[in-house]
Amino acid sequence: MDFEPVVWRDDRLIIIDQTLLPNAYVHKTLETLSDVWEAIKVLRVRGAPAIGVCAAFGVLVGLREKTPSDVAGALAAVTTSADYLATSRPTAVNLFTALDRMKRAATVCQQFVSVRQTVATTNCGENATISGLDVFRQRIETEAMAIFEEDQALCHAIGNHGAALIQDGHGVLTHCNAGGLATSGYGTALAVMFRAHELGRRFHVFADETRPLLQGARLTAWELMQAGIDVTLICDNMAAQVMREGRVQIVIVGADRIAANGDTANKIGTYNVAVIAHAHNVPFYVAAPSTTFDLTLDDGDGIPIEQRDPGEIVHGFGKRTAPEGVKVYNPAFDVTPAHLIAGIITERGVLRPPYRTTIAACL
Amino acid sequence: MDFEPVVWRDDRLIIIDQTLLPNAYVHKTLETLSDVWEAIKVLRVRGAPAIGVCAAFGVLVGLREKTPSDVAGALAAVTTSADYLATSRPTAVNLFTALDRMKRAATVCQQFVSVRQTVATTNCGENATISGLDVFRQRIETEAMAIFEEDQALCHAIGNHGAALIQDGHGVLTHCNAGGLATSGYGTALAVMFRAHELGRRFHVFADETRPLLQGARLTAWELMQAGIDVTLICDNMAAQVMREGRVQIVIVGADRIAANGDTANKIGTYNVAVIAHAHNVPFYVAAPSTTFDLTLDDGDGIPIEQRDPGEIVHGFGKRTAPEGVKVYNPAFDVTPAHLIAGIITERGVLRPPYRTTIAACL
Repeated sequence: MDFEPVVWRDDRLIIIDQTLLPNAYVHKTLETLSDVWEAIKVLRVRGAPAIGVCAAFGVLVGLREKTPSDVAGALAAVTTSADYLATSRPTAVNLFTALDRMKRAATVCQQFVSVRQTVATTNCGENATISGLDVFRQRIETEAMAIFEEDQALCHAIGNHGAALIQDGHGVLTHCNAGGLATSGYGTALAVMFRAHELGRRFHVFADETRPLLQGARLTAWELMQAGIDVTLICDNMAAQVMREGRVQIVIVGADRIAANGDTANKIGTYNVAVIAHAHNVPFYVAAPSTTFDLTLDDGDGIPIEQRDPGEIVHGFGKRTAPEGVKVYNPAFDVTPAHLIAGIITERGVLRPPYRTTIAACL
Repeated sequence: MDFEPVVWRDDRLIIIDQTLLPNAYVHKTLETLSDVWEAIKVLRVRGAPAIGVCAAFGVLVGLREKTPSDVAGALAAVTTSADYLATSRPTAVNLFTALDRMKRAATVCQQFVSVRQTVATTNCGENATISGLDVFRQRIETEAMAIFEEDQALCHAIGNHGAALIQDGHGVLTHCNAGGLATSGYGTALAVMFRAHELGRRFHVFADETRPLLQGARLTAWELMQAGIDVTLICDNMAAQVMREGRVQIVIVGADRIAANGDTANKIGTYNVAVIAHAHNVPFYVAAPSTTFDLTLDDGDGIPIEQRDPGEIVHGFGKRTAPEGVKVYNPAFDVTPAHLIAGIITERGVLRPPYRTTIAACL
């Protein structure tokens, strides 16, 4: 991929504003912590892995913004920044995993620096304090970069493991966007397609437009076209018809959180796709890094489902498309039960049922 | 209902321009035959029964526009007008049924008037010719009015027969708009809800927004709110989730054409709803007048499916929502196989499987 959806460069957090795609390709620098929160909230950055990466860098933005004068203050800045960013969206577990990792790194580093500082202060006073803060900052930045780079590696491994599932002549259906834009750059569900394409496999993709925010139409179609992969856009409600016509041999989608038993939360409409795929004997795969597993949840019932603004449905495209005052239900995610999932494509291979066993073994 | 979606008044064909709803409630007079064709084509008037009624009146517009000087010319005007209007949309059988009925009435009338005219000419010459043309015009107008009034009666009978299916506390899901706007004024699927509401039944409706043209969001939600029926708007891809939450006890949709075996063509996405309803053990009903049956087709494979402009999907809301040049598949209808249909609510009662027998017996 020749784009970087989330990047930390010269001490600045820069994203592609995905709300403007495909009409405009605009980079946006997130200057403040509240810029980062807002970017995640309104989906300028979206996709579970990308949210995690962006939030990790967001902690660096918060640390800079709060200008702490010592390591204790820096630790407090990291903690409050992370806790604040954790309120932006509830469903993708990668957000919390990344923020917890940043907080843990900060705590460990603070303890380390404190010991070092105590020793240093004994020797040379103030200089050592400045040095401790620098060490802390460097360590935190290193952790965020590690999250970013690890995600890149995870995506490529997912692509490698999943590519064999796509055969010549296949029709592949995907929902929402689990592409480069949803990650640090290569995607999860789309990584499988990118890799199969690199390997010379010839196949066709049907992209659900994915109401209400049209990530399929705006982002997935755009990414696949950029990569030279043959893609046809459909409305979500056409997927069953396309399957009935025999044009889909495999479904691959991403995930926002996967419980211990394999139940998978993903963009609203994914469960619909899983049900119709099952009815047409089309195997339904989830592609996600192991950072998406949440073993604290026994099954999908415990996954918090974000409810979003009705305006996304009734006023999403510059004009009103439903009567004033109409009631709207707008869950941003749904949960696909494990029994509808043929396999989970991770960086460690394709997991098969029984997922409770294979997921536990994978971690 | 306090609106008339299609009306013939003072020799003028007046419709509600449904493309402007719910933002504007505008009547439009269709002055020419080509106005009528365009109104059907771009869905200013839509819904199988309404298309049939509008086309019948459209023949009157064509007859007036062509200013024939004798009955033979009038018959030709009816025939060419009807044949032209038949090219507007391919799927709804009511269009062809109504136009055939107009042509048949014209042919019979022409034969009758010719005999009468021959006799009259022997007696008093030119006056009899004028009278014959008037008789012809009157007969044709009567036929169109009969189609209109019969449709109103059919809708009310459908409402009466179907209302018992909706019980207190039910969640009812519908797709697209099979309401008053889709007929001569009371609807088919929505007639069942209107009647249940009139009978004091308390229930809740989930309206699929129905991409790409959002007839559910724009029209169904509007009609149900006008009638004081509790309605919640959802995106099409949320229907499975709403069913999984146990909030839907019955699905009722309309139909554009029903084959001899019960296979039913209706707005794209209907088949998707039927599959997910089946997976959740929710009974799926079709509500349609017997004018929707097409016994010339053994099953749904023979139903022509209209393919529409990709612009409806990629540029439907006043701004572009997908990359330039993306391939799009935009079938306007799909076919739900009979085995997924719990019953067909007609003006003569609720038909049950085996449909080949019950449909034949109903006609």
